[in-house]
Amino acid sequence: MSTTITVPPGLRNVVVTETTLGDVRGDEGFYHYRQYSAIELAKSKTLEDVWYLMFEGHLPTPAERDRFIAELAPLRVLPAEVRAVLPAIATAGATSNPLAGAESNPVAGAAFNPLAGLRTALSLLAAVRGLPPLWDADPARRKADAMLVCAATPTILAALYRLREGQEPLEPRADLSAAANWLYLITGAEPSAVHATAIEHYLVSTVDHGFNASTFTARVIASTGADVVSAVAGAIGAFSGPLHGGAPDRALASLDEIGTPDRIDAWVRAKVSAGDRIMGFGHAVYRTEDPRSLMLRDLARGIGGELVDFATTVEQRIVDVLAELKPGRNLFANVEFYAGVVMELCGVPRAMFTPTFAVSRIIGWSANILEQATDPKIIRPIATYVGPRPPAPIS
Amino acid sequence: MSTTITVPPGLRNVVVTETTLGDVRGDEGFYHYRQYSAIELAKSKTLEDVWYLMFEGHLPTPAERDRFIAELAPLRVLPAEVRAVLPAIATAGATSNPLAGAESNPVAGAAFNPLAGLRTALSLLAAVRGLPPLWDADPARRKADAMLVCAATPTILAALYRLREGQEPLEPRADLSAAANWLYLITGAEPSAVHATAIEHYLVSTVDHGFNASTFTARVIASTGADVVSAVAGAIGAFSGPLHGGAPDRALASLDEIGTPDRIDAWVRAKVSAGDRIMGFGHAVYRTEDPRSLMLRDLARGIGGELVDFATTVEQRIVDVLAELKPGRNLFANVEFYAGVVMELCGVPRAMFTPTFAVSRIIGWSANILEQATDPKIIRPIATYVGPRPPAPIS
Repeated sequence: MSTTITVPPGLRNVVVTETTLGDVRGDEGFYHYRQYSAIELAKSKTLEDVWYLMFEGHLPTPAERDRFIAELAPLRVLPAEVRAVLPAIATAGATSNPLAGAESNPVAGAAFNPLAGLRTALSLLAAVRGLPPLWDADPARRKADAMLVCAATPTILAALYRLREGQEPLEPRADLSAAANWLYLITGAEPSAVHATAIEHYLVSTVDHGFNASTFTARVIASTGADVVSAVAGAIGAFSGPLHGGAPDRALASLDEIGTPDRIDAWVRAKVSAGDRIMGFGHAVYRTEDPRSLMLRDLARGIGGELVDFATTVEQRIVDVLAELKPGRNLFANVEFYAGVVMELCGVPRAMFTPTFAVSRIIGWSANILEQATDPKIIRPIATYVGPRPPAPIS
Repeated sequence: MSTTITVPPGLRNVVVTETTLGDVRGDEGFYHYRQYSAIELAKSKTLEDVWYLMFEGHLPTPAERDRFIAELAPLRVLPAEVRAVLPAIATAGATSNPLAGAESNPVAGAAFNPLAGLRTALSLLAAVRGLPPLWDADPARRKADAMLVCAATPTILAALYRLREGQEPLEPRADLSAAANWLYLITGAEPSAVHATAIEHYLVSTVDHGFNASTFTARVIASTGADVVSAVAGAIGAFSGPLHGGAPDRALASLDEIGTPDRIDAWVRAKVSAGDRIMGFGHAVYRTEDPRSLMLRDLARGIGGELVDFATTVEQRIVDVLAELKPGRNLFANVEFYAGVVMELCGVPRAMFTPTFAVSRIIGWSANILEQATDPKIIRPIATYVGPRPPAPIS
């Protein structure tokens, strides 16, 4: 029997791997992609630049950028076999689904779940394209598969949204940046430069963020040598977990619930005394203000308006009340809070807030999968059996 | 900064959780479900009995068994929305797919991937049924969702196989045991009692097996509070990884490759000197004969025939040659080797060998997901950044 190693519950602070992709320094309010400040990248580079950085290890030269963008364009267009199934995926569980009889669908009217839909469509795409296991693929093929997955994701998510709304999906536009194309695919209108830039900043700032639960899931699956979509499908599942966080619509729902500035204090105190979490505040790693939140607040202020004024008032008041009620906990607005505000300002429908997060994070998952594929060691801890001692007689 | 904990690569021998579901004692050649020997359960209980044991913690009384079987029957029948999409899933990537134009499908003729198809269909089923996150569901709802997933899996897999073969899917039969129903759904013929019993032994013996990579994946995703299908979809991905093992068709392919008894020695020596793994031999945990292999060999011998004689000859010779070439490594036939033989004898087509494994293992994954759902702690280790020191100036 090998000696077992006991560590804190949930593998907290246990180092599972080395990475050159980036890190979060929670005490400094700083995070980085490779050797660059992620926030500085968000302010100065495009999503495609940062995508290239994560996959290739360096920022692209102008020629590399052009080649990369040209490679991406056809990958955004979905194969006919996936397209054909999107209406069924988009309307799964909806009362209006013509396929759904009363007996066959007792949970009629299930909420639209774009991330489950994305997983379904990517899983089908993997079969259509015949994705090989990472271990049977050379580095170029792995990268091509990861490119496909990241490029197809916005097209899939926007098509699901439009189909659910009873609209026709739109074709991706190669003349638009990734961020502008995303807004176009959802809304059907070419976004203003201000809105496209704000969403691009948001997308770049959420590509990766240390070793979060969905990223870890992607790496565990990749460590078995499975294909890129197997790993991404698992990550999407972990991402949907309530403990993972990252649902900007919940934070905005709080603003709606509060309604007016005079109700902020009572709302926060009621939440805290009921033991409820306040969505959009506090972070597992940051002990300072969340650097993403600071950037997004500046962006929101740049756009301006009533919602921004109300949000900044609410933020400040919540931080103050939390400091009073939970002294020493350093609870600040996290990425969720202003992400919701920025997306609302840019015309993203609330059902697509979390999917917008997924559009960028899938690039981070993919970079992690490509890195994990170079490590021959499977990630596989053990469990301790604590039940009644076997073998018991079988009655 | 919290102190980080350094452990062996791949979290080897690191205890991530406690479980009452079972364990493997590699040095003793023994594994158990709860307090019972898994092999003894396989020899004396039905798959439904063991499924109940894993979900409920005890073997069912006759009344509990009847109620459980009655609950299962309707869950095996797929909703219309899932049924409607199965043809597209089954033929994804096939050259014969009428939806696949030449441009849209450059990898025409991609191999049939029933596990990716299962994941696609389950992901759709989750949306159709509106599966809630584990953390928003009470224990009864969690269990009901897990029952649905496990009951629907054989129906989905068999339907995908028949559709890919150009045949109509069959309706599950409530009058058959889970094992006999599985053979019926694939082959269209009611199996003999001998074949149904052999497959049932195999299914029971593969429900769970300690903390393997797919089980760990399921638990990581469940630890975020995500829904049952999110966790199962991740497990399916890990299960498909070449390092996970568990592909009984590969071991049978070796028998074909060897062909005749006089070629065994040369074949093994060539494999070993080329540094190739010999599929169906050796196990990460067992240092003895694999108890599943012993049971399956007995079952195969009970059925008898030329294939069994050849397989036992090959097994013995491979073990002897490996003992000579890799002394002290204790390499024996694992579950893959005789699983392939038994399935071939029972008329399971080779494309459905690994899916047959999935039919039982999904019960084990689900039991692990239900157990993980009672633990409020997310599983989330950390990574160490080892790249160039940030922040570097952005050019």
